[in-house]
Amino acid sequence: MFKVHKTDGRARLGQMTLAHGVVNTPIFMPVGTVGSVKSLVPEDLKTLGAEIILGNTYHLYLRPGLDVIRHFNGLHKFIQWDKPILTDSGGFQIFSLGQLRKITEEGCVFQSHIDGKKINLTPELAVEIQETIGADIHMVLDECTPYPATPEEAKHSMERSLRWAKRCREVKSRDELWQFGIVQGGMYHDLRKQSLEGLGELGFEGFSIGGLSVGEPKPAMRETTDFCCEHLPEDKPRYLMGVGTPLDIIESVNYGVDMFDCVMPTRNGRNGTLFTSLGKVNIKNQKHQFDESPLDPECSCYTCQNFSRSYLRHLFIAKEITALRLLTLHNLTYYLHLIHDIRDAIREDRFQDLLKHHQQLWDK
Amino acid sequence: MFKVHKTDGRARLGQMTLAHGVVNTPIFMPVGTVGSVKSLVPEDLKTLGAEIILGNTYHLYLRPGLDVIRHFNGLHKFIQWDKPILTDSGGFQIFSLGQLRKITEEGCVFQSHIDGKKINLTPELAVEIQETIGADIHMVLDECTPYPATPEEAKHSMERSLRWAKRCREVKSRDELWQFGIVQGGMYHDLRKQSLEGLGELGFEGFSIGGLSVGEPKPAMRETTDFCCEHLPEDKPRYLMGVGTPLDIIESVNYGVDMFDCVMPTRNGRNGTLFTSLGKVNIKNQKHQFDESPLDPECSCYTCQNFSRSYLRHLFIAKEITALRLLTLHNLTYYLHLIHDIRDAIREDRFQDLLKHHQQLWDK
Ligand SMILES: [Zn+2]
Ligand SMILES: [Zn+2]
Repeated sequence: MFKVHKTDGRARLGQMTLAHGVVNTPIFMPVGTVGSVKSLVPEDLKTLGAEIILGNTYHLYLRPGLDVIRHFNGLHKFIQWDKPILTDSGGFQIFSLGQLRKITEEGCVFQSHIDGKKINLTPELAVEIQETIGADIHMVLDECTPYPATPEEAKHSMERSLRWAKRCREVKSRDELWQFGIVQGGMYHDLRKQSLEGLGELGFEGFSIGGLSVGEPKPAMRETTDFCCEHLPEDKPRYLMGVGTPLDIIESVNYGVDMFDCVMPTRNGRNGTLFTSLGKVNIKNQKHQFDESPLDPECSCYTCQNFSRSYLRHLFIAKEITALRLLTLHNLTYYLHLIHDIRDAIREDRFQDLLKHHQQLWDK
Repeated sequence: MFKVHKTDGRARLGQMTLAHGVVNTPIFMPVGTVGSVKSLVPEDLKTLGAEIILGNTYHLYLRPGLDVIRHFNGLHKFIQWDKPILTDSGGFQIFSLGQLRKITEEGCVFQSHIDGKKINLTPELAVEIQETIGADIHMVLDECTPYPATPEEAKHSMERSLRWAKRCREVKSRDELWQFGIVQGGMYHDLRKQSLEGLGELGFEGFSIGGLSVGEPKPAMRETTDFCCEHLPEDKPRYLMGVGTPLDIIESVNYGVDMFDCVMPTRNGRNGTLFTSLGKVNIKNQKHQFDESPLDPECSCYTCQNFSRSYLRHLFIAKEITALRLLTLHNLTYYLHLIHDIRDAIREDRFQDLLKHHQQLWDK
């Protein structure tokens, strides 16, 4: 069940009741690709207040594989995470990581990037994998439309994704788990509209806005998000896959997006780039060498409560594993605090002020 | 102040009162080379019950460097660890890591393995660095005698170490910090005896047994440890540097050693080799693929209380950073539990039974 409790403009405050618990929206989902959020353990995620995490179907299918996941009756028990999990369909990763061999109406044939094994990922298999994982929310298999694409290419790809979405819906067998359709259609409004209308007839529990963050300019991404949100049903959650920076997130909430995931806080943390209330910080920078102040004076994370920029810089430069953990903890805390700030602002009808604050902070 | 409260044979139960608190002996000190125990944070070390950690002077001198450590009034504040710290003198690391240029009576000239800078580490500088670090216990600079060494080589090296120890003692300036002499003399009893008698006149707060774990056979190591312990004063703590396996530790306690440090639990953890109550476990092993049981059914660590061997194997094979943390946590827990078992056994006059148990466990 999804309920919108409150709106402020198009920004929405809502709640999803999923198989493993309640998730408030807007929500940011930390990425736990192969069954761990890199450098963290489930206890950390609970301390951070993560309500749901994302697993990558492509990675999990290859390793540990369905036989292991089945042996543990699903991913939750295997990774010891008892709150909700969302999985992608694996399609995007096949395009970006796998040695893609052929896409046909049947599905995608690809070679594992791990052992070269040939795999035929059909819409039906994508659902079977995700239901075996036991993801509270899973995605239909879609064909990712590249950017740029001609109207013909985008149309062909969108229509195939729609037929695949139908096949996914038909084989869905676990009622307690949600399935999201994925809106495609490139940067073309008419195609996006056809896609979301077609998906709308299939009874999905929610919708993802797909085909973004694929190299298009930011205005195109925002404009497409705006358009999709305007035409998606009010009573279903909206998920903008793989997005994004703090500003991307708050701008998208402004259009009515409810759900986000992104590797940015974790990956950037491991690369020494931190998001703070003062803007971006590059911890490698020489100017932090003697700096006794915390990364972010407004942050309540373990890292900011205990360590100086000087120490963090030292650990990072010395390539100490501990640095990865401390910086990841901070960045995820920043993202999850941002989500709480967004919720508070919607609740108190001051979302536009928060949006303006972040536009100034990040555009400088 | 060091007090021996109880003995069982030559095994000793004692207590050191140091500048940053009390440390019980026998003690195992996790290695925090450049200011972090790899993959862990201070909070973890407290959860594990670590009473003291080791820092490496060579590494800390090169990075972050004395100017940064001085800026924070010592290492404790820089790394946010308020319990005792012990440092080595840096000599051993120069021999193993640095591009050693020349040893003279004055000291060792070497090139940093980081930036090639030429450094002249004298006994006086070794003390200055360690007092700036603010280590509760620091080591004199010694010349490491290689194995094998002729009696002449070992004698020459031991005598130089003795002269250096005297110079270190002369420049020691912070009364609240302890300084240990290091017994050298290779595998030769007469030289070891000369060394410890020479050091005995200098008023050190404790003694390290040096020149072991340098490639000599285990029986030679144990025999030399036995001999040194027999001749060291009863009222001073005895530290066996860089040792060792769980069996090495318990065998050495049997000769009267009080203090240990070793990279083995942390390094082996990161390599997937675990110490458990059932013996060694190689987590990469295929046989753990579906194994729902914990690493060690008798272990109370976060890893064993929460995760299966199957999951740990998966994370390790997928090269997830989280695996390094989980496996390090377990191995250090094992070592610190072993130390507690040893203390309990001494207290209850059943140390020989515990020794026998471990001889059977690890020799199989
Ligand atoms: Zn923080
Ligand atoms: Zn354990």
